[in-house]
This record gives sequence, structure tokens and C-alpha cells, in this order.
Amino acid sequence: MEFKQEWLEEVLTARSRAYTPFSHFKVGAYLVTKDGRAFYGCNVENAAYGPTICAERTALVSAIAQGYRPGDFKMIVVATGADKPSSPCGVCRQVMKELCDDDMPVLMTNTAGDVIESTVAELLPNGFSGKDLTND
Amino acid sequence: MEFKQEWLEEVLTARSRAYTPFSHFKVGAYLVTKDGRAFYGCNVENAAYGPTICAERTALVSAIAQGYRPGDFKMIVVATGADKPSSPCGVCRQVMKELCDDDMPVLMTNTAGDVIESTVAELLPNGFSGKDLTND
Amino acid sequence: MEFKQEWLEEVLTARSRAYTPFSHFKVGAYLVTKDGRAFYGCNVENAAYGPTICAERTALVSAIAQGYRPGDFKMIVVATGADKPSSPCGVCRQVMKELCDDDMPVLMTNTAGDVIESTVAELLPNGFSGKDLTND
Amino acid sequence: MEFKQEWLEEVLTARSRAYTPFSHFKVGAYLVTKDGRAFYGCNVENAAYGPTICAERTALVSAIAQGYRPGDFKMIVVATGADKPSSPCGVCRQVMKELCDDDMPVLMTNTAGDVIESTVAELLPNGFSGKDLTND
Repeated sequence: MEFKQEWLEEVLTARSRAYTPFSHFKVGAYLVTKDGRAFYGCNVENAAYGPTICAERTALVSAIAQGYRPGDFKMIVVATGADKPSSPCGVCRQVMKELCDDDMPVLMTNTAGDVIESTVAELLPNGFSGKDLTND
Repeated sequence: MEFKQEWLEEVLTARSRAYTPFSHFKVGAYLVTKDGRAFYGCNVENAAYGPTICAERTALVSAIAQGYRPGDFKMIVVATGADKPSSPCGVCRQVMKELCDDDMPVLMTNTAGDVIESTVAELLPNGFSGKDLTND
Repeated sequence: MEFKQEWLEEVLTARSRAYTPFSHFKVGAYLVTKDGRAFYGCNVENAAYGPTICAERTALVSAIAQGYRPGDFKMIVVATGADKPSSPCGVCRQVMKELCDDDMPVLMTNTAGDVIESTVAELLPNGFSGKDLTND
Repeated sequence: MEFKQEWLEEVLTARSRAYTPFSHFKVGAYLVTKDGRAFYGCNVENAAYGPTICAERTALVSAIAQGYRPGDFKMIVVATGADKPSSPCGVCRQVMKELCDDDMPVLMTNTAGDVIESTVAELLPNGFSGKDLTND
């Protein structure tokens, strides 16, 4: 998937809204739906650490609250300020597994514009899903 | 705070977007900012349960990603389909503690239009916050 | 409930095991069962912040994995190094609501031995529980 | 790694302690340290879903509270009652990334004794870690 310069601008705008009084590690996400809408996400930290919500999940739940459903998403771009683009954490991979197609592109970038491309399935191989939930 | 009928319509619209394949317990949230904007939230479940995000948090992080900051929020309405309006869970109370004023009204309602009113501080008395974080 | 000096020693031992490379804010928990067994807890942080597990929850799930059930717990002591004893976060209050009696004492202390006493129900008034989960 | 029958008995004992009033999906974990101690884990659910803690994390934080540190773990076995052994969720993969060696074996099994073997790094490729946390 060819990375468009405008995506970098969008995801860095999203990143600028990060609420990170504890880590000062700002992350942005730019989620695009198959019908062409876009949602911003940023990390929102908490003094108790555990309730912290990452940028990828912020973008995804924002879209669900606007009526989008699993399968409606085309791609997500994630940006940090690190020298090498960072990967989503395991929690976000699990949420993407639930809400996104397995082959949905996940594009990781940084303020320098470096890009690494992956997919939901590559990031969470043999992922846990609702299909596993049997009540024996 | 006088409960307006239009808030019930809004929060039930938000609730209709809940993604709840596991509990089938749908929750909606309607967050209003001090400058008059509103954000919808709904619960977004996950097969792994732990990554589930509630309606209140969905609304709050959606607003943060749009540039709102702690202190910008005027009130939140939460709705379930239960006979008695449900209270926010402890995770959401902790996130409200981080992002909302202590005296911000939290209005709990249900499809029948019953209303219970509380505040952030009443729901999380002696709440944990960044002021506790000292590195001794 | 009279606070025993030995509880302070126990909870500070638990606290010494905290894994806190990110916040350097160490918390310990000392959970006692009604049949007289005790479990240590400490906070276990994560680079991704969200998967961080607090001391109170560490102690409680350790006990469940050893066969204890909701209602089996007599009290919990929590200790930080802060000037004023800190309260449990909302996530831990929610987990205590699930696993502990409403009137179970929660004793908050610090390295100086100051003590604040509360209960599960006081910390999470009008708490969310399984009774709220109706599928309308 | 040759799977030993006694590990199946251990992990199923751990699984029998699962607290799963909401999903009825019981999971057990059996964690072994390099110096030969073992810790049980089981999933501990919560009415609010989000505070649910999985079996793998229960075992790991139990060990940390007993003084074990990242790098001290030799292997983990996880068991469900599903027809095909289930994989850990993304949250647990992220916690294993924090606390375990990248090449630590993760053995997935079920009540029928089927076994699938993987490692921490295979389950969370290009995993997010403390090395990513730079404050630009």
C-alpha cells in the first residue's frame, strides 16, 4: 500500500492531541473506513496506568460510537516520535482482531515519516477471537 | 440538574451503537462539553473480555482525540436497559477522575427514563490521582 | 479494626517486590482470608501502561488461583511510599466489588505507618455488579 | 519441548479454579520458573468485563509478588476446554513480552491433551516494549 504524505499530516495532528502527563510518549492514530470517513485517535493516560487507552483503540471506539461496525475499516496509521516506528501494543492488536479484517493494513510511522507496513493477522498470529469461546 | 428529555433520546441513540456480542448488555453515553459540543459513547466488547471499553470511556477518549482537555466537560449521561439505572464501573470512574471536574454531574438513566444523579467525586470518594504519584 | 504492626511489615515486604520500571511508584498489598491465609500483591507495570496490574488485584487473583472464592476474604492492607496513604484505583475497587464482601475493611497505609480505614462499599458507592447485567 | 503429562494435570487443576460467572469459559495456566518453582493461574472475570484478568497474567503476577523477576521464567502452559487449544489474548502476550524471554516456550493445550507450541516472540512479532518509550 503506497503511503500518502497526507496521512502523515493527519496522524501527526491526531498525535498532537495525546494526553500523556505520565509517560510523555505521544501516539497518534488515523483510521480510515471503507466508505471514506476518517477517525483520529490518541493515547489517553491515567494516573493509575491500567485505565490508559492507546491511540489505536481511541480511534476504533470513536468510529464504533458513530455507527461503524467490524469489517467497515480500510486501514489504520499509527505514529510516534520514536526513531523507529513503534508497533501497536498487544491490547490494541487484540481490539483490532475483534473489529478489523485480518488482512487490514496497519501502517506504522513516526515524525520523520519512516513507514513500516503490517496487517492485523501478522501482528497477532493465531489470534484469540470469539470463535475460541466455547462453554465446555 | 434538571434532566432534559432530549438527553434521553441522544443517549439512547448512542446506546444503539453498542457492540456487545458477548454480554448483550448495551450501554450508551452522552458527553457534553462546557463549550456545547456533544460526544457519543457506547460499550465495545472483546472476546478476551479485558480489552472491553465501556460507553463512558468511549465518549471521553473520542472527545480528547478531538482536542478537548481535562476540565472541558460539563456533564455525562449514561444509559442502560436495566430496570434501575446502572452506575459506571470502577474503571470509568477512574477515567472520569482523571479527565473531569470532581463536581461534574454524572446522570444515570435507562430506557424507561428513570434518572439517578451523582458526581465524579461521589462515585470515587478519596479517588486516586496524579497527586498520589510520588517516587519515594 | 485495630491496625497491627505486623501487617505493616508484611505489606512493605509485598511492596518491595513491585515491578515499576516506568512510574517508580511502588505499591504493596497484603490480603488475609477468613480462614487465616495471607497473599502478597504488588504492582506489575507494562511498557504499554494499559496492561499494568495493581497490587490489590495481584493479591486477589493470586488467592483465586489458589482456590479461594468471592466472600473468602477478611481484609486487605495497601501500602505506598506517599506522604499520605493512597486509595485503591477504580479498577481495583471494581475487582474488590466483584470478589469481596461490601463491608470488608480496606486499610491504606504508607512506609511511615499512617493508616486510613475504609470498606469496599465506601470506596465504590452504588457499585456496578453482576446484578446490573440484564439483557433487555 | 517435549510435553509432559504431569503438566496437563497441573494446568487442568489451575483451570478448575477459574472464576467465570459471565463467560463460563475456563482457562488455566501453569508457569514454571528457571529455578523450578511453579505458579498456577486462572481467569478471574468481572461484571464490568474490562477488569477481567486472564490465567496467564494471574500466574505471572503471582510469581512477581513472590519475588520473581523478568527473565526468571522457563515456560508457561495454558489450557482451555476448547476443541482446539486456544492462544493467549493480546493483553497476555503484551505482559509476557514485558516479563518473559522472547524465546520462552508457550504451550497451549486443552482438556483432550492436544498441544500447540509457540514462543513469546512468535505470538507478538515486533512487540512493543520499554525500548520504544522515548520522550521526543
